[in-house]
Amino acid sequence: MISTVVLSEGQRTKANEDKKLETMRHSAAHVMAEAVQSLFPDAKFGIGPAIKNGFYYDFELPRSLTPDDLPIIEAKMSEIIASNIPFNRQEVSKGEARQILASQPYKLELLDEIPDEKVSLYRQGSFVDLCRGPHLDSTGGIEAFKLVSIAGAYWRGNEHRPMMQRIYGVAFASKRALAEHLEQIEEAAKRDHRKLGRELDLFSIQEEAGPGLVFWHPKGAVIRRVIEDFWKDEHVRRGYDIVYTPHIARLDLWKTSGHWEFYREHLYSPMEVEGQEYMIKPMNCLGHILIYKTRRRSYQELPLRYAELGTVYRYERSGVLFGLARVRGFTQDDAHIFCSFEQLEDEVAGVLDLALFLTDTFGFTNYKVLLSTRPEKYAGELESWEKATEILRQALARLRIAYEVDPGEGVFYGPKIDIQFEDALGRGWQGPTIQVDFNLPQRFNVTYIGQDGREHLVAMVHRTVLGSMERFLASLLEHYGGVFPVWLAPIQVMIIPVADRHLDYAHHLESELRSEGVRVKVDGRSERINLKIRQAQLDKIPYMLVVGDKEVAASTVSVRLRSGEQATSQTLESFREGIRLAIASKSKGLSL
Amino acid sequence: MISTVVLSEGQRTKANEDKKLETMRHSAAHVMAEAVQSLFPDAKFGIGPAIKNGFYYDFELPRSLTPDDLPIIEAKMSEIIASNIPFNRQEVSKGEARQILASQPYKLELLDEIPDEKVSLYRQGSFVDLCRGPHLDSTGGIEAFKLVSIAGAYWRGNEHRPMMQRIYGVAFASKRALAEHLEQIEEAAKRDHRKLGRELDLFSIQEEAGPGLVFWHPKGAVIRRVIEDFWKDEHVRRGYDIVYTPHIARLDLWKTSGHWEFYREHLYSPMEVEGQEYMIKPMNCLGHILIYKTRRRSYQELPLRYAELGTVYRYERSGVLFGLARVRGFTQDDAHIFCSFEQLEDEVAGVLDLALFLTDTFGFTNYKVLLSTRPEKYAGELESWEKATEILRQALARLRIAYEVDPGEGVFYGPKIDIQFEDALGRGWQGPTIQVDFNLPQRFNVTYIGQDGREHLVAMVHRTVLGSMERFLASLLEHYGGVFPVWLAPIQVMIIPVADRHLDYAHHLESELRSEGVRVKVDGRSERINLKIRQAQLDKIPYMLVVGDKEVAASTVSVRLRSGEQATSQTLESFREGIRLAIASKSKGLSL
Repeated sequence: MISTVVLSEGQRTKANEDKKLETMRHSAAHVMAEAVQSLFPDAKFGIGPAIKNGFYYDFELPRSLTPDDLPIIEAKMSEIIASNIPFNRQEVSKGEARQILASQPYKLELLDEIPDEKVSLYRQGSFVDLCRGPHLDSTGGIEAFKLVSIAGAYWRGNEHRPMMQRIYGVAFASKRALAEHLEQIEEAAKRDHRKLGRELDLFSIQEEAGPGLVFWHPKGAVIRRVIEDFWKDEHVRRGYDIVYTPHIARLDLWKTSGHWEFYREHLYSPMEVEGQEYMIKPMNCLGHILIYKTRRRSYQELPLRYAELGTVYRYERSGVLFGLARVRGFTQDDAHIFCSFEQLEDEVAGVLDLALFLTDTFGFTNYKVLLSTRPEKYAGELESWEKATEILRQALARLRIAYEVDPGEGVFYGPKIDIQFEDALGRGWQGPTIQVDFNLPQRFNVTYIGQDGREHLVAMVHRTVLGSMERFLASLLEHYGGVFPVWLAPIQVMIIPVADRHLDYAHHLESELRSEGVRVKVDGRSERINLKIRQAQLDKIPYMLVVGDKEVAASTVSVRLRSGEQATSQTLESFREGIRLAIASKSKGLSL
Repeated sequence: MISTVVLSEGQRTKANEDKKLETMRHSAAHVMAEAVQSLFPDAKFGIGPAIKNGFYYDFELPRSLTPDDLPIIEAKMSEIIASNIPFNRQEVSKGEARQILASQPYKLELLDEIPDEKVSLYRQGSFVDLCRGPHLDSTGGIEAFKLVSIAGAYWRGNEHRPMMQRIYGVAFASKRALAEHLEQIEEAAKRDHRKLGRELDLFSIQEEAGPGLVFWHPKGAVIRRVIEDFWKDEHVRRGYDIVYTPHIARLDLWKTSGHWEFYREHLYSPMEVEGQEYMIKPMNCLGHILIYKTRRRSYQELPLRYAELGTVYRYERSGVLFGLARVRGFTQDDAHIFCSFEQLEDEVAGVLDLALFLTDTFGFTNYKVLLSTRPEKYAGELESWEKATEILRQALARLRIAYEVDPGEGVFYGPKIDIQFEDALGRGWQGPTIQVDFNLPQRFNVTYIGQDGREHLVAMVHRTVLGSMERFLASLLEHYGGVFPVWLAPIQVMIIPVADRHLDYAHHLESELRSEGVRVKVDGRSERINLKIRQAQLDKIPYMLVVGDKEVAASTVSVRLRSGEQATSQTLESFREGIRLAIASKSKGLSL
């Protein structure tokens, strides 16, 4: 079975660096604990691990912390770091440890759960902690850190246990890396898709209708339509058939499929119609299977690739809902491929190629690929699993795609490939997923007549490329910070007449550009020109065409970019040709 | 108030003819009853009215009728008609009538329910009937008739009363009109969208998933996408904004709107989520209202026109479901216009113009327009109703559209205009509907800030043009009998290579045409050429390009039409340009 990790040299170096950073962050947590102890000698300590980008520690303190406490704790930490005191590891028996940690009830609780006879303690200065390590040699190795926030956290995440105070910090290998990270956090806050969605009037989620349900406003819907049209055209070009299936179906179907049994906590409650139970669909696969099964299929018809922008509904606790990124109703860019086992490698390679082409066109050029293999509980034959996993590997190899193996993380019905793409801030987004399914073809007896005249089960592939329209818009918004490339911008051109006497010319330009398929508006309000330019910039409209006496006389336009770049004068023909090309080529930049 | 019917002279003539036909059909029912009585002297008679295209009569007979009985009854009827015996009207007291009809229990029952003291009887030959009339002077006036079917029918439609035997007949003013009608019935059966949908593999409705829920197969989905893209482009061109709203929402919204109260029998049962009740949407209006209400709106923003291809679910009894024409889930081509009262006439005129443009483009050129006015139970102010109804009239007048008034048939929330279009067989299909709504703006307080700085309720218009994608596909299928114009055909060109050695050239043609956006396939099977042509004709594919040695050598194509028209030889360039034009112009015919 596959369990090796395919790592390039660069990836190996990075793994080492990650390990070093993690150690430094863990040590910073201990230093923070020491600083807190010096300020609150009675502090009781919970746990203090390294996490992504930093660390935290949980404390029980005589009073509530406020943001004003953080600089004081930071100053104390800086002192400890400047003293460069060593971290000392000590192996002791549990009895000795119990004496040393006698005043720390939470530590004692943890101690009791360790099965080994010997445990390790780490000490620096006056602070001692029950800890497996490893740590830096001394506190001076902590290069750059900052405390960022305070939060409440139940001891061991259990709401029946005491609420402790958690301080979060970040730590990096250099002052520069720390500064970059803090800048990135600030930038990420500015790019928060919920904030941008509101500012650019793209979508809303409304308490009145229910949490997690998305309303696409006109400008958001324009982006969605551009994405959907491109998606459909590209799928048809690659031999997919678009289909439409209903949003509800008899519950019995979901019992046959196993979803009712295995996935119940995410399903909406059934509706009753004439004594039959119906359910709103949590996925599109069964609809596609039913279409496949409307007639007997021959090997000559395969592969059949059914694609649907199918809106599905899944229950999520309201506490975990988050903007467009985690919702209760979403439109998957879904497809199911029905093929023979012999065709599977070609099909998987085809999906990978399509997936990388689409995400690249949308501007995501970095990605990470994971191959997830057979979990402990699985459906289907062991032999099929091995064969299918090998096929996924070969498809990846054929496209020379580097990947990591996630052993045992496949779905119960088959192995899968996940692609996580990275946005402009280096954050990962769940992207394309390709899953082989041994379960549904069997449960629904999905077959074809082979060249041998006999009936065979199909190989079935589930796949989405963008994931869902909702989450994909979130990633696009945060990736571009709302500054969309021209082909995706809801309004591409704002024409700004200097005075009312230039309105006719403005509308002439508008209709000329509109007939070319350009999304264009005229800002005909009687407002100052600078205010109108400022508004268009706030709306992140790629091009502003300012037209006054000079432009009317010369039949030209004065082009401004939303970046504030200096105006250039162009003929209408030249501008029109330029924007036409930028749109048609799905250009990521703005140049005319 | 408006209650006059605007009728052209042609319409008046037609109304007179309809009256005469109805009398003849009613008389034919009596003649049929006399014929049945002569064959079954103990026959008991129910009722025998004229209906659309013909008549029926219900009988209680000593044995079940079979289709073989119909020619015998027809022959007897022809005898009676040839004898040209008079219909005699006779006024009698109810007591006398009771004696005359003593052997007819069903007639006696009807007699008892007549409040008047005197009743009228009609007699011809040995047959006498309790009947208000009118009738022809004599049986010879029945020009052309045919008995078409036998069915069971409960006495007075009550399943607890006896089951009678009903014979249906048709009757017309001339042998030619009758022949045309019978031909039309035959043609309609051939064009039945359920039959064509199956034969052309366009869609299915599957018992497993539930009745009334439509699965769009690849070829049906192609047609739907062409319709939807055209619809969206035309709406955007006319200043509509496309939006998307969720398929479920909290039930409270539907309580506020009044749907829960007034429309309950068509609603699906609620789903429970975290203690809140949700419902699958039966209409799209509330979603559009919620988007409108996400911010304060100024008069300068109006009109706002939100359009959505929104899939809705309404409960219908399984007994009334019918193919695509009556379903439980359907995608409305919906839009809601929010405007001021002053803008209402322009908006209604705009919708009428759009509606007639779209239906005409799809090939429906005949239509009937109805203006439905205030019903007895209504929401809103009397004055607003009168004003709005007058506005609808003026919009119709402005576009010089002839219409009839349907007094009192408006929806409870406002007056409306309905357009019924006629298909190639002269049958009516429910088409565009435009409804003014006084109810929802009030219930949801949908307002704008006027030029006067004060808050005003908007005028709201509900409208669909095609109705739903499902019903519209049914009407298109039956209108064209599946022989779609080239722009709507799922596959536009089938390339048929004569032998395997012509496959390369066939695929070259395929990619040339596909790059032009043409939907083209190659039939590369090793089958006889005539069989492949026959298959393409059965699939009603507009163009077949047969390519053999001659075509390869000369770089030409041999074009056949699905009508079987003789092949013509063309260069690829000429064919490509021809089909490009036919598609772009949405041409209804096939000419190259």
